[in-house]
Amino acid sequence: MLKYKKPLILITNDDGVHAKGINALIEGVRSLGEIVVIAPDRIRSGMSSAITASNPIRLNQIHKEKDLTVYSCTGTPVDCVKLGINEILDRKPDLLLSGINHGSNAAICVIYSGTVGAALEGCILKIPSVGISLTNHSPDADFTQAVKYGKLIAEKILAGELPEGVCINLNIPDISNVKGLKICTQTKGYWAKEFQTAKDPSGQTVYWLTGSFLNEELGNEQSDEWALSQGYAALVPLQPDMTAYSVLGKIKNWELSV
Amino acid sequence: MLKYKKPLILITNDDGVHAKGINALIEGVRSLGEIVVIAPDRIRSGMSSAITASNPIRLNQIHKEKDLTVYSCTGTPVDCVKLGINEILDRKPDLLLSGINHGSNAAICVIYSGTVGAALEGCILKIPSVGISLTNHSPDADFTQAVKYGKLIAEKILAGELPEGVCINLNIPDISNVKGLKICTQTKGYWAKEFQTAKDPSGQTVYWLTGSFLNEELGNEQSDEWALSQGYAALVPLQPDMTAYSVLGKIKNWELSV
Repeated sequence: MLKYKKPLILITNDDGVHAKGINALIEGVRSLGEIVVIAPDRIRSGMSSAITASNPIRLNQIHKEKDLTVYSCTGTPVDCVKLGINEILDRKPDLLLSGINHGSNAAICVIYSGTVGAALEGCILKIPSVGISLTNHSPDADFTQAVKYGKLIAEKILAGELPEGVCINLNIPDISNVKGLKICTQTKGYWAKEFQTAKDPSGQTVYWLTGSFLNEELGNEQSDEWALSQGYAALVPLQPDMTAYSVLGKIKNWELSV
Repeated sequence: MLKYKKPLILITNDDGVHAKGINALIEGVRSLGEIVVIAPDRIRSGMSSAITASNPIRLNQIHKEKDLTVYSCTGTPVDCVKLGINEILDRKPDLLLSGINHGSNAAICVIYSGTVGAALEGCILKIPSVGISLTNHSPDADFTQAVKYGKLIAEKILAGELPEGVCINLNIPDISNVKGLKICTQTKGYWAKEFQTAKDPSGQTVYWLTGSFLNEELGNEQSDEWALSQGYAALVPLQPDMTAYSVLGKIKNWELSV
């Protein structure tokens, strides 16, 4: 008789292994399977899909109990996923969860987000993957609703409902009565007025990245920003293929004219 | 009478401002306009679209002559682009060039590449943008062919031939007789066997990221890896919208079942 194995769930984030969001997520999904956490040892927000190319990476097991093992890692969120799948786990995980991020990763933030970067990496390595974010940056935000929706999506994916080749970007509004879930597109837009300048103690100018999001699709009821603004959790399926297929035909004549 | 202004070209990279590749590019396109270089002060390979979220960024003007100004920046490639467009340049650049990277950024490398991250950032900020890479990692690689193709594409873009909303990922094979240019798609695949383990001087295990690319589209004559393998420069148009539109319909019923 084959030994029954619980689903194996790999969890990471970009706010660091000690953040409230990842620990709320761990507690929320523990009943679903065996949990292995490999997360950055410090804040790694805005790390996108960065990898540690020129330095060695270290892993440190910081907690172990039945069905829960936690590692702290000096690498990026993507490094954590790669280490888990290549070096630490004894079998392919059934699910990768990244988050719960302190702060929105809707719209163009998918490009900069380490939370989403880790989910994309899981997808590239053939693991059903979800990035989960709450639209509240506070270290002590209330993750109750985000955990609820994250767990619902995790259950769907463990039931085999995620199409191949895509991962999920899930954002939850910071309200106590989330209205439900909308399947959305990535809102078009960009960040504007991005820097605050300041002087360091020696009088040199330094630049702090800040700014505000400029939504170019206000009122588009398909977009994730619209869903969040209306009190819904917003789910966008993402793919790692960034080819702009719609313009391939238009620029094909460049082949002949170089 | 209006004063004629030369095209303004912003140049960055991820190998650092002193790398051979960026300096070959600067010399290669100087005749096309006024050049402003804002590039990392050190190697920032594998930085993807990472941003510096928690620390101040510093800029240092290290060279100035007629129509060429060079800044060294403590930030990531994307930070360099954001600083250029938000803080340094007195008008919107006509073109952003990122590279020339020492090493290929074809296939899934677009996800990890700081060179491509900078080009995507230009695209997000409405600047016609190109990432340029040579398939040779060596610090003293020969950039002759890469400069030639990079300049040809720069001229096309300055002539207004790039459709809106996309940027260009250009890879040039490391051969002296490049056969021409192919318009391609991003090759599907992933990196496998990614780590070498080693011991540090105190006997602790460390992990070095390495590995080899596993091509899942061998023989696909549309793919950028195929074009490079046949001796062509490979041009892939990229878009920052990662929505997997093809599965939106399939998962729409999730809205009702949470």
